[in-house]
Amino acid sequence: MPEWKDYSKEQLLKLKAEYRRKYEEYRSLGLNLDMSRGKPSPDLLDLSNGLLAGLDTYTAEDGADIRNYGVLTGIPECRRLFSDLLDIPAEQIIIGNNASLELMNNVFSRLCLFGAQGHTPWSKLDKVKFLCPSPGYDRHFAISEAYGAEMQIIPMTENGPDMDVVEELVKRDGSVKGIWCNPLYSNPQGIVYSDETVGRLAAMETKAKDFRIFWDNAYGVHHIYEEHKIADILRLAEKAGNGDRVYYFFSTSKITFPGGGISMMAASEANIAEQKKHISVQTIGYDKINQMRTVKFFKSAEGIREHMVKLGALIRPKFDLVMDTLDREFGGTGLLKWIRPKGGYFISVDTLEGCAKEVVAAAKAAGAKLTSAGLTFPYGKDPMDSNIRIAPTYPAPDELRSAMNLLCVCIKLVSADKLLKEK
Amino acid sequence: MPEWKDYSKEQLLKLKAEYRRKYEEYRSLGLNLDMSRGKPSPDLLDLSNGLLAGLDTYTAEDGADIRNYGVLTGIPECRRLFSDLLDIPAEQIIIGNNASLELMNNVFSRLCLFGAQGHTPWSKLDKVKFLCPSPGYDRHFAISEAYGAEMQIIPMTENGPDMDVVEELVKRDGSVKGIWCNPLYSNPQGIVYSDETVGRLAAMETKAKDFRIFWDNAYGVHHIYEEHKIADILRLAEKAGNGDRVYYFFSTSKITFPGGGISMMAASEANIAEQKKHISVQTIGYDKINQMRTVKFFKSAEGIREHMVKLGALIRPKFDLVMDTLDREFGGTGLLKWIRPKGGYFISVDTLEGCAKEVVAAAKAAGAKLTSAGLTFPYGKDPMDSNIRIAPTYPAPDELRSAMNLLCVCIKLVSADKLLKEK
Repeated sequence: MPEWKDYSKEQLLKLKAEYRRKYEEYRSLGLNLDMSRGKPSPDLLDLSNGLLAGLDTYTAEDGADIRNYGVLTGIPECRRLFSDLLDIPAEQIIIGNNASLELMNNVFSRLCLFGAQGHTPWSKLDKVKFLCPSPGYDRHFAISEAYGAEMQIIPMTENGPDMDVVEELVKRDGSVKGIWCNPLYSNPQGIVYSDETVGRLAAMETKAKDFRIFWDNAYGVHHIYEEHKIADILRLAEKAGNGDRVYYFFSTSKITFPGGGISMMAASEANIAEQKKHISVQTIGYDKINQMRTVKFFKSAEGIREHMVKLGALIRPKFDLVMDTLDREFGGTGLLKWIRPKGGYFISVDTLEGCAKEVVAAAKAAGAKLTSAGLTFPYGKDPMDSNIRIAPTYPAPDELRSAMNLLCVCIKLVSADKLLKEK
Repeated sequence: MPEWKDYSKEQLLKLKAEYRRKYEEYRSLGLNLDMSRGKPSPDLLDLSNGLLAGLDTYTAEDGADIRNYGVLTGIPECRRLFSDLLDIPAEQIIIGNNASLELMNNVFSRLCLFGAQGHTPWSKLDKVKFLCPSPGYDRHFAISEAYGAEMQIIPMTENGPDMDVVEELVKRDGSVKGIWCNPLYSNPQGIVYSDETVGRLAAMETKAKDFRIFWDNAYGVHHIYEEHKIADILRLAEKAGNGDRVYYFFSTSKITFPGGGISMMAASEANIAEQKKHISVQTIGYDKINQMRTVKFFKSAEGIREHMVKLGALIRPKFDLVMDTLDREFGGTGLLKWIRPKGGYFISVDTLEGCAKEVVAAAKAAGAKLTSAGLTFPYGKDPMDSNIRIAPTYPAPDELRSAMNLLCVCIKLVSADKLLKEK
């Protein structure tokens, strides 16, 4: 079977008519499907309903009454839980409230207003540039955009951001102040940063002495197929003499309840001391009761790992369904490119250039909501207009099947049209 | 009985010796008492243990699954709870996480970085001044200090901040950008802002078009004796054409669990729209599960009011003990001035000029921790070195009695010394 681009005009017209008909069939069904955001489905949430049960203690292991003020960095048993899970010394950990995004925002905001470790606050500089490996997470980009950083796309490879590009930029341009990273099962491609990539990020020479890596390990334990590990960026950076370069973030949003879990940041001891100084002005302490609930529910890091196996078992069929559909519908067509995600929450595909927006709009008009095209790039602008993020976790399996079938029809219809225009 | 200042040198020497002896007696007891922070005692916390019970639903009344992402401004039943309690339209309310201090910090930070309603961000201005009615709350002052605002003391009267001073300053100086207010049962004096004070704050002419009132109604329902009400600043400001002037804050920190409750901000619809825009970049949403817990626990605004009656009944004897002790020990001595607090969490006293630091140090050396002297003023500097904040809620009654007796001894000892130096 030839690729679609090699079809004649007549063949393409026939295909276009066929998929137009199929599309209209879908549209007549009045579907209401959502593959737009990385939300867990109710059955995934149900696995954590134990968090809603009563709490039988309000005393932390150090004697603190968790109902009262105090304890800025988190109760010791909760810091230890994450220390064990992620192999980070507990004293380098601060437990936050319900959103690691808020921790990232707060750190970014402090860099702008106060600067880091004695460096000039970024808001006082003429220009701040931020590197955005893309496709990436829209909410990362939204933060750097809000604070006025000029965002620069970094191409992604199967091993993470293209490090040749990154190293070149950070070495010669002192206004490049940081990079967003989602190192394990990256959003949206499910890429795992290689040890070499992590090592180069930790050790690379940067013109800006206050260059910062926002290391959002959001899917740090979210294995779907086999388990993958990433190199220890905090230790590598410290070894390379760049200990203060990394802010590490994690949360239970995609482990227990999005918006009802707890978040975490980790960094060098100097960075933690600096953040504590700022945090102590901004709050008397984060919610220790939810920290205790989380500790009581999981009991240990091993408890979290076991929980993730159960979550993975529910998510895997959804990933498989999407991958099987893509293989079946697009194998050999030359219409679509994708990387098999190694885990995480998303699947990312690239259409022919200039088709993504139209595909997403067509799907939406027929009742299937996808992440807006472009949103996986800075400023919401995909220069190739080809990337589409599929979020398969929320829909029920049969809904996901319908939504995927509809998506395939839309891609084929829009692609046929695109190829015809080029004939 | 004459005032102490009218005593002869010989009489004062005798008094000094007497209180020196009493002080040494206390010191030999090795006490460990804490009247330093506004923390509830365990029996006050116990009244809210129902919040630790299991939650029997995870569906908000609009159908939202509170375990999942979404709902930026809070679940409807929670916004309505505070709307009913505080007589503020629900659509002007945003429910936050566990600390209203964090909401205040975030709003302040946004004013610095982004400005308000199109005005220049404060961080771009040469100078920003902030008015600090004093004695006041140290954590308010810490925020304005951290963001580089120049703080100006505003004297307190029995009706709130001295409005003649405030009006004069805001009218002629465009760099005066805002004021901290704690209008009901002010920290630390327990003063209730009069209707006239509130009306003048809402309507006064300000040179800065982006002048802002941080209205921290932290003790909005914390009645100890009879109930007091303050005028409705949001409506008054709107009526005066200054609708965007006010950010109103509230929390359940001193209702249920400090650090484990929920917070709230309210403002004009334009201000709420602006804050929502910023918040949507910074988080996907606040903890809705804790919102639901709070709603289920109290059921209604009336439920909160009934709860506050119980809290008040436990706090009242502590307030009475402090007031009775002050009356008994200092009535007619001329050594100490105080205002009877009308409610809230604190009692504030003023020693003779230049004595507060020494009194607090002496009490600490004998085992009774008080709020650091000066902390109730901007930059931690009380120009008269006379204000001491007493936080009576945490100690058990017999501990409070000991701590108060010791404090009285310290005040008399230091005062005798001071008066002797002037002879």
